Amino acid sequence: MSDVSELSPQELAERCAAALFERDRATRHLGMQILRMAPGVSVLRMTVTEEMLQGHDTCHGGYMFTLADSAFAFACNSQNAATVASGCSIDYIAPAKLGDVLTATAEERSRNGRTGVYDVRVENQLGDLVALFRGKSYQVRGPVIREEI
Amino acid sequence: MSDVSELSPQELAERCAAALFERDRATRHLGMQILRMAPGVSVLRMTVTEEMLQGHDTCHGGYMFTLADSAFAFACNSQNAATVASGCSIDYIAPAKLGDVLTATAEERSRNGRTGVYDVRVENQLGDLVALFRGKSYQVRGPVIREEI
Amino acid sequence: MSDVSELSPQELAERCAAALFERDRATRHLGMQILRMAPGVSVLRMTVTEEMLQGHDTCHGGYMFTLADSAFAFACNSQNAATVASGCSIDYIAPAKLGDVLTATAEERSRNGRTGVYDVRVENQLGDLVALFRGKSYQVRGPVIREEI
Amino acid sequence: MSDVSELSPQELAERCAAALFERDRATRHLGMQILRMAPGVSVLRMTVTEEMLQGHDTCHGGYMFTLADSAFAFACNSQNAATVASGCSIDYIAPAKLGDVLTATAEERSRNGRTGVYDVRVENQLGDLVALFRGKSYQVRGPVIREEI
Repeated sequence: MSDVSELSPQELAERCAAALFERDRATRHLGMQILRMAPGVSVLRMTVTEEMLQGHDTCHGGYMFTLADSAFAFACNSQNAATVASGCSIDYIAPAKLGDVLTATAEERSRNGRTGVYDVRVENQLGDLVALFRGKSYQVRGPVIREEI
Repeated sequence: MSDVSELSPQELAERCAAALFERDRATRHLGMQILRMAPGVSVLRMTVTEEMLQGHDTCHGGYMFTLADSAFAFACNSQNAATVASGCSIDYIAPAKLGDVLTATAEERSRNGRTGVYDVRVENQLGDLVALFRGKSYQVRGPVIREEI
Repeated sequence: MSDVSELSPQELAERCAAALFERDRATRHLGMQILRMAPGVSVLRMTVTEEMLQGHDTCHGGYMFTLADSAFAFACNSQNAATVASGCSIDYIAPAKLGDVLTATAEERSRNGRTGVYDVRVENQLGDLVALFRGKSYQVRGPVIREEI
Repeated sequence: MSDVSELSPQELAERCAAALFERDRATRHLGMQILRMAPGVSVLRMTVTEEMLQGHDTCHGGYMFTLADSAFAFACNSQNAATVASGCSIDYIAPAKLGDVLTATAEERSRNGRTGVYDVRVENQLGDLVALFRGKSYQVRGPVIREEI
């Protein structure tokens, strides 16, 4: 067991992500994987499955949003201060299809007092931009992880 | 078999919704129900299930967004012009919990040329406001339904 | 001199607006007028002048935003709790031209703890919708007015 | 007189900006200066004057928005296709005060068919982030400049 305060920012980001991922049934249920964590940064991946398709036979915007929103959540909780979303926006650039492998890269643009702004790019397996997302975060009480086991 | 052009706006809204719902696996897979359709208006309902919970043990914002986004899609496709989302924003007002029954009411605020703006309120079973959503729509080619069987 | 706490909500909204307007050089400088105040509601008017025109010879979006933003500010400060904007979005529906008289109607959609959401419609003198605005407010310390003289 | 089609992308960006600036009374009236142009990029500067102050004695959000919106307009018109804003959002990070010199840097994030997404950072003279803006553009008919004199 070791003290959280002894972790480097990079280790802290990884431990926060592992703890959140463990508790976050929604993110796991959708088959998302964490590809990379760093302070204020996360990269998540998800494959478009049949049950994500809407009436135009492309991925429901809600699932593209959910991937981006998860990437945002992992990025804004990477510094061990429990943080929630206050609002988000998404712009759809191109449709995603069945089997597409989507990668969401979240980066902190601002953190100031209890609020922050994060941008997320969602790309497909060809590197084509699929969606741009912006999330506003609000820091609540408490840490993400308390101690290191 | 009857001509689509003979339907009243209300009938058309209901037929478009039925056709979209039939094709929209994502919306059906999440257990959403259409409570009401009218021209430019839709009301959808969804119950928060275990697999929608995130790391703070409340409903993942992505699922609240997905419900609102579906309500938006049904509302903006209710006049038999195939329409997609170009961008959306959501503001989270209160968390939703396991078992909460969420109702999303979408209303057209503007339709002008090929673009439109729709507002969606998401409330829980107590009538508490949970989220406010705004969707921007873009009309593509083609109708939602071609003929009435 | 009378106590602020004895004012009705309607009187309070009017006194807050009068005090804010007095201090708000930007709003006055642009020739805005307050047409109506109520708790959580404001209606402001502004005429499009020559110096508001951009390169396409229509009103610069920034001035339509500024009118909506002022209406938002008066609405969210109408309950005597000093409140600022944390973020805003605007959708442009139709252009405004030289001489157009724009009316912005702001209404509270949600107020919850220190944060709120307000919607503003901007219309021209023909009642045509020109823009839709949504503002997120954050309550800071202190009242808008302290005592009534 | 020379053909527009012979200009390099950089020259074209500069000529489009010069032509727009000439026509854009709002941008000139507020004392904005163009510091830099490149394809999809613009940097504009504006000083906060007394008539830009609102009731809290800081710069009215509308003027910060207007600066960002102008930077967005110059960036999205830099490739000689006449382009207008369809919608914008702004997040306020820190207040701006009388005399602050604000610099807005606009960068294209996506351009796809007739629509685009641009991000703008607004900083003060100390390099502090003041606001983050995102603009959605829509390409209309016609060029920005027709021929080179």
